[in-house]
Amino acid sequence: MTSLSVFRDVPIAQKLEGSLLKIYRQDDSSVKMFLAYKVCMTEGGHPWVSLVVRKTRLQIAEDPSLNYEYLPLAGLKSFIQASLELLFGKHSQAIVEKRVGGVHIVGESGAFQLGAQFLKIWRKNLKTVCIISCQNEQCGLIFRDMGFTVYEYSVWNSTDLCSDPSIFVEVLQHIPAGSILVIGNISDCRFTQNQWTKLMSIIKSKQIFPFFDIPCQGLSTGDLEEDSKFLQHFVSLGFEFFCSQSLSKNFGIYDEGVGILVVAALSNQHLLCVISQLMDYVQALWGNPPATGARIITSILCNPALFGEWKQSLKGVVENIMLIKEKVKEKLRLLGTPGSWNHITRQSGTHGYLGLNCILRGLFPK
Amino acid sequence: MTSLSVFRDVPIAQKLEGSLLKIYRQDDSSVKMFLAYKVCMTEGGHPWVSLVVRKTRLQIAEDPSLNYEYLPLAGLKSFIQASLELLFGKHSQAIVEKRVGGVHIVGESGAFQLGAQFLKIWRKNLKTVCIISCQNEQCGLIFRDMGFTVYEYSVWNSTDLCSDPSIFVEVLQHIPAGSILVIGNISDCRFTQNQWTKLMSIIKSKQIFPFFDIPCQGLSTGDLEEDSKFLQHFVSLGFEFFCSQSLSKNFGIYDEGVGILVVAALSNQHLLCVISQLMDYVQALWGNPPATGARIITSILCNPALFGEWKQSLKGVVENIMLIKEKVKEKLRLLGTPGSWNHITRQSGTHGYLGLNCILRGLFPK
Repeated sequence: MTSLSVFRDVPIAQKLEGSLLKIYRQDDSSVKMFLAYKVCMTEGGHPWVSLVVRKTRLQIAEDPSLNYEYLPLAGLKSFIQASLELLFGKHSQAIVEKRVGGVHIVGESGAFQLGAQFLKIWRKNLKTVCIISCQNEQCGLIFRDMGFTVYEYSVWNSTDLCSDPSIFVEVLQHIPAGSILVIGNISDCRFTQNQWTKLMSIIKSKQIFPFFDIPCQGLSTGDLEEDSKFLQHFVSLGFEFFCSQSLSKNFGIYDEGVGILVVAALSNQHLLCVISQLMDYVQALWGNPPATGARIITSILCNPALFGEWKQSLKGVVENIMLIKEKVKEKLRLLGTPGSWNHITRQSGTHGYLGLNCILRGLFPK
Repeated sequence: MTSLSVFRDVPIAQKLEGSLLKIYRQDDSSVKMFLAYKVCMTEGGHPWVSLVVRKTRLQIAEDPSLNYEYLPLAGLKSFIQASLELLFGKHSQAIVEKRVGGVHIVGESGAFQLGAQFLKIWRKNLKTVCIISCQNEQCGLIFRDMGFTVYEYSVWNSTDLCSDPSIFVEVLQHIPAGSILVIGNISDCRFTQNQWTKLMSIIKSKQIFPFFDIPCQGLSTGDLEEDSKFLQHFVSLGFEFFCSQSLSKNFGIYDEGVGILVVAALSNQHLLCVISQLMDYVQALWGNPPATGARIITSILCNPALFGEWKQSLKGVVENIMLIKEKVKEKLRLLGTPGSWNHITRQSGTHGYLGLNCILRGLFPK
């Protein structure tokens, strides 16, 4: 057939993933080191998987009573319940009052994709999205594609080399009223009580809609409650918000991309309306969500012994990360590198900001 | 807090799923029977799962060498390759020429969601979608939400009680030039060579873009090749198209919602451009796709012994469905029900059109 391709005007897209690793591999330096893995690595150089996950996966595969029927559109009910309890605490008043709920989502972007679709249709007056984080957040792309105006702010203070809560408050004071505020990874940001009160009051008076991101509860401080404390604060004060709760990283099942779009509303009635609309979008996005990741997580969260093992494994990972940070600091000290490197061990979490300047070599991206 | 909810204008959405089953359960008739399950049921009343799937699931869970790193955005490479070979045949010229490819997608709607997003951006002149099938297709909702004008056509001939290829050709003659044509479940439509030629020539001359749906290859006739023969015909003649290839139903892993958006292009160069753009949308939709379903399917498709077992299990299901249809026909004959019921056993596939009139009771939906 000699006809023209219907795709003749489609150019190759700019590559989004893997480019940093590719450049690293092409680099012929003998002292190179890759510091930007997306997953926690074991000492053997493999992605970390909680041991209890392996055991649970096997138990599920061996279970002859399980059926593999489609999950409901909203997802696995027990998974949603267990995840909400993990986030807000087992005895959360908001859970008792049934004013927090969720939809089982797919992948790392699913919660933002779903939430953004809802906000675009049902909160038409919210046109601006402000993303505040101490790292690049992918969700900007999603909101931008849907026609929102997106601003991104970093809370990193490059003089004091820390996540700075006063930058957070300052940003809040300057963003437009009626914005959607995506609050990314800020677990390192240590607010004073005074700063918290100020923050809450600005969000309320400027009618800002918060959209939290909890990418790896438990992997910041090693303490599950500590990592979601600020969210519990918001919900106890009656704020309404969305939250992307991802559960792939803290269980080490990166390849199952599973989580919840959490909805906090003023009442159960409002919650049910929002969830029912979200299910319409789910139907169009992916239909019924995949079950494996959710089954593994639910089995662990609902079994006290397995839950204990998992919590312990999280602590182990966090301690190991801290140990690596200590070693880096010590090495820099021994080398007599000028400056103070205490900021390295002051930071909790899976990420570490070294505060080094980059030497640009060839194609090294910004 | 006494403030108004930001969700106060959000109504409850019309329920999309489960309403038929709900009404059935509420019906107090003692002779009621539910005929609209979405999955194949075993005699024990459980959703059918190919035995070889259970075995493979266990092997995967036991494999200590597997790592659970994020899959690439485009998905599991070996899964895509194996699925394309299943669809087009191992020795397909189009596969050799690398002008067919695919993206690993999530859920039953994922391929249409992804394909529709691409067509909306890159084929702006295609504004009309015509869906032709012998059942209701959910993808209409997806295209409609994105602003396409959607027309739906049935090939069911209610006089002769069969899927009628002449209706298909007639529809094609009347739809607007430059339409997207979604070709749903038409495996029951037995085209003559003449009708095929006519169909191809209309599609070409009216610059219609075909978007096929292969929801359960092998469950129509029990023969994998037979079920995708018409697609091989299209690709061998150099047509460009999209195809939603779902692999959940024919492996009995309904709860893993896994498949491929298949792209057939004129050349490898065009294909690579299209796939690269699709990956941009994947990044925003769900990020990296879940792996379990794809791993199970790949393990089976790439192992001749397991593949043989699976093929055999498909034949078993199809024979069983045919047996049920025979029994229904025989029962109607024994009861002396007026009319001919041969159309019941003339139909292949998981669905059966009885040609009964509904007695509307209370809330029974249309």
